[in-house]
Amino acid sequence: MSTATLAAKPAGARDPLSLVFAALADPTRRAMLTRLRSGPVTVSELGAPFDMSGPAVSKHLRVLERAGLVARGRVAQSRPATLRAEPMKQVAEWAEEFREFWDQRYDRLDDYLRTMPDDPKDDA
Amino acid sequence: MSTATLAAKPAGARDPLSLVFAALADPTRRAMLTRLRSGPVTVSELGAPFDMSGPAVSKHLRVLERAGLVARGRVAQSRPATLRAEPMKQVAEWAEEFREFWDQRYDRLDDYLRTMPDDPKDDA
Repeated sequence: MSTATLAAKPAGARDPLSLVFAALADPTRRAMLTRLRSGPVTVSELGAPFDMSGPAVSKHLRVLERAGLVARGRVAQSRPATLRAEPMKQVAEWAEEFREFWDQRYDRLDDYLRTMPDDPKDDA
Repeated sequence: MSTATLAAKPAGARDPLSLVFAALADPTRRAMLTRLRSGPVTVSELGAPFDMSGPAVSKHLRVLERAGLVARGRVAQSRPATLRAEPMKQVAEWAEEFREFWDQRYDRLDDYLRTMPDDPKDDA
């Protein structure tokens, strides 16, 4: 039995960072965010490269909005979508905490090589 | 009609980066990865802080393994889980592409403030 018990959260009650990661777990949504780096676009402009229906584009946009990665404008009926990149900073910071382990495989190889005896030929 | 049409991928045929983001979209799995930074652990050690059944822990571990974030050892029955942080580098690099937009809101505020007339009191 553990003193510090962390209960699993029920599905649907996701924390903000989980919403961001879930929104990014789709290549179409990631491509939409990359497209939005060029500036705000309407739903039809955003959907054009994907051969996707308006409702399908809107559904992806709602996932991105819920994660705080996109904001919708109030310009008449077009409601252009705008990139909100602040949550991306949290994603980068979270991943950066593992930076020391990214190249660990090579570090381990270096350690292994250091334990190897010198090449016998060097002693000749 | 667009010249470059990108078909949406069917569900279940996820690309590697989507598998990584999906694996990270859960606070329990993120906590498990943080725990694994201290070194390899068995399934029961990994599950202890979460008050979670062995099968539930194994299910989370399979999601992490499929994403390439965890490797399982071959030590007798214990099969300790080890962190594999290489995919985290891709996550960080992907998010980093949005760095110029992280503080954009403040940049825009600066631009706006620069267009404001000087305080009338300064003219008195």
